[in-house]
Amino acid sequence: MAIERKPVIAIVGAGKCSKKLRDNAAIVARYVAKNGGVVVCGGLEGIMEGAARGAWEGGGVSIGILPGEDRNDANKFITYAIPTGFGEARNIMVIRMADVVVAFPGKYGTLSEMAFALKAGKPVISISAWKVGEDIISMDDPTEAAEKAMELAQAALEE
Amino acid sequence: MAIERKPVIAIVGAGKCSKKLRDNAAIVARYVAKNGGVVVCGGLEGIMEGAARGAWEGGGVSIGILPGEDRNDANKFITYAIPTGFGEARNIMVIRMADVVVAFPGKYGTLSEMAFALKAGKPVISISAWKVGEDIISMDDPTEAAEKAMELAQAALEE
Amino acid sequence: MAIERKPVIAIVGAGKCSKKLRDNAAIVARYVAKNGGVVVCGGLEGIMEGAARGAWEGGGVSIGILPGEDRNDANKFITYAIPTGFGEARNIMVIRMADVVVAFPGKYGTLSEMAFALKAGKPVISISAWKVGEDIISMDDPTEAAEKAMELAQAALEE
Amino acid sequence: MAIERKPVIAIVGAGKCSKKLRDNAAIVARYVAKNGGVVVCGGLEGIMEGAARGAWEGGGVSIGILPGEDRNDANKFITYAIPTGFGEARNIMVIRMADVVVAFPGKYGTLSEMAFALKAGKPVISISAWKVGEDIISMDDPTEAAEKAMELAQAALEE
Repeated sequence: MAIERKPVIAIVGAGKCSKKLRDNAAIVARYVAKNGGVVVCGGLEGIMEGAARGAWEGGGVSIGILPGEDRNDANKFITYAIPTGFGEARNIMVIRMADVVVAFPGKYGTLSEMAFALKAGKPVISISAWKVGEDIISMDDPTEAAEKAMELAQAALEE
Repeated sequence: MAIERKPVIAIVGAGKCSKKLRDNAAIVARYVAKNGGVVVCGGLEGIMEGAARGAWEGGGVSIGILPGEDRNDANKFITYAIPTGFGEARNIMVIRMADVVVAFPGKYGTLSEMAFALKAGKPVISISAWKVGEDIISMDDPTEAAEKAMELAQAALEE
Repeated sequence: MAIERKPVIAIVGAGKCSKKLRDNAAIVARYVAKNGGVVVCGGLEGIMEGAARGAWEGGGVSIGILPGEDRNDANKFITYAIPTGFGEARNIMVIRMADVVVAFPGKYGTLSEMAFALKAGKPVISISAWKVGEDIISMDDPTEAAEKAMELAQAALEE
Repeated sequence: MAIERKPVIAIVGAGKCSKKLRDNAAIVARYVAKNGGVVVCGGLEGIMEGAARGAWEGGGVSIGILPGEDRNDANKFITYAIPTGFGEARNIMVIRMADVVVAFPGKYGTLSEMAFALKAGKPVISISAWKVGEDIISMDDPTEAAEKAMELAQAALEE
């Protein structure tokens, strides 16, 4: 009778990025959405917008956890915007909500999210993002990365 | 083409309460869900469980913003659980996400949420909860309170 | 050999207030500082500035926990400024650091701080501030309030 | 008439470490304290304890920003303990309070602190810690690192 928990995939990366990277983020998110997963991200532009768009295109849901206090800061594809007013600390919540983190290239904000994920013992799949530590799973193809992410998230849910 | 923002109603109150109060919280949430709104709450037991159950019964969505780090702390009716690890500070996020706050009886945690909502200039409907300040809208009937909440939330969205 | 923990008194209240109230906050803080206590506050203007000034006049220390990211937001009497970037959530830290809370008149932000303190089971002395719940100790004279605060803080330290 | 702002140095690194590393953290902190600076750290064991001990030996002050709600979690050398209840998010506050960050070896928690500091544009001196990005200043000798840290902090204060 209870609601079944769905796999949650965080998609992190730069707030400003190329169209190509945004599209790759959308590919990951679309796969997640089509396969019954939920996308969580920081809710703003760049990789975050690609992620939210992909979830929308895949008929699924994205949660955007915003740094500011105004939910209108969210990009237009975010299903549920959560303004926090906690600034950078909202990154921690993006990671905490997720079963698996998929990281695209980004600067030090992305690095901090990857570090938090690793600290929390969550799988981190890096698509050309920071390579720090042996615990990161490096992949090139966004669809393969999405498959891997969902597989790892399912495993985490069954633990 | 953008996703339409839905009205968001926070339902707050005691983590331990009578069946009657839990049912009243469910009545409010069910009305919100049936009329296209989203319910946000603290994700745990008592009023929060009633709220999540009502949203589920109404075919809608509840967001549960949890104090701890484990999403399994969420009650079984929560659609999307957001573990924060921020303790009491998560109350602030429950309020920030909402357009309108409906408060049921609760102790000082509930009072702090009502105070935050009033500080943020959000309408607070109190169903037999704390009466502090003239800005609180006191109501008795949960269905009427839900109607009022949705009406105020729609007005906030159109601003 | 360990450093002895000093009693910590939070002083909360409006960010804008009369000279009289600011002076009363300073009276409380001065007493605390002269008697070996530490003052913690929100670090900005009004009651917070009075509190920091009083600590400074009494030869003691004030900690100012700021909502923003810039420590230059602190009033000029704050000994140690802690910018958080957490907005209103910093109120919770002001309360958590304290053994006892002394509240001056303020709006809903002050009310939320009092509510958090009561929830955390900390003594709250109200000098003409909100009267919510029987747990609040109401007093009129700032010097007597300061004596009472230090007495309760010492008791808390010895627990 | 205003209180002069003192340079603030964050010292970060593992919560469990060798005596040698703890002593090196103490060397940095002692130098900072003797030269009029303030030490901020996470308040717990390992590098954090070395840092607090050094500040104490140098006749100065350490601020310990704790993840939990209980100030008794602080190591015995912390001058002012600030319990936050915000878990890992307290790392962000440690960084925000500082003008300069000195990083000792640590795992992903340390990496996240370094990443936050770099994101905030603050100088990061790494003493055998993570080497990520060109912006990190790598040094070997703790005394030289402390000198450099104070020099950079003074420059930041004069900006």
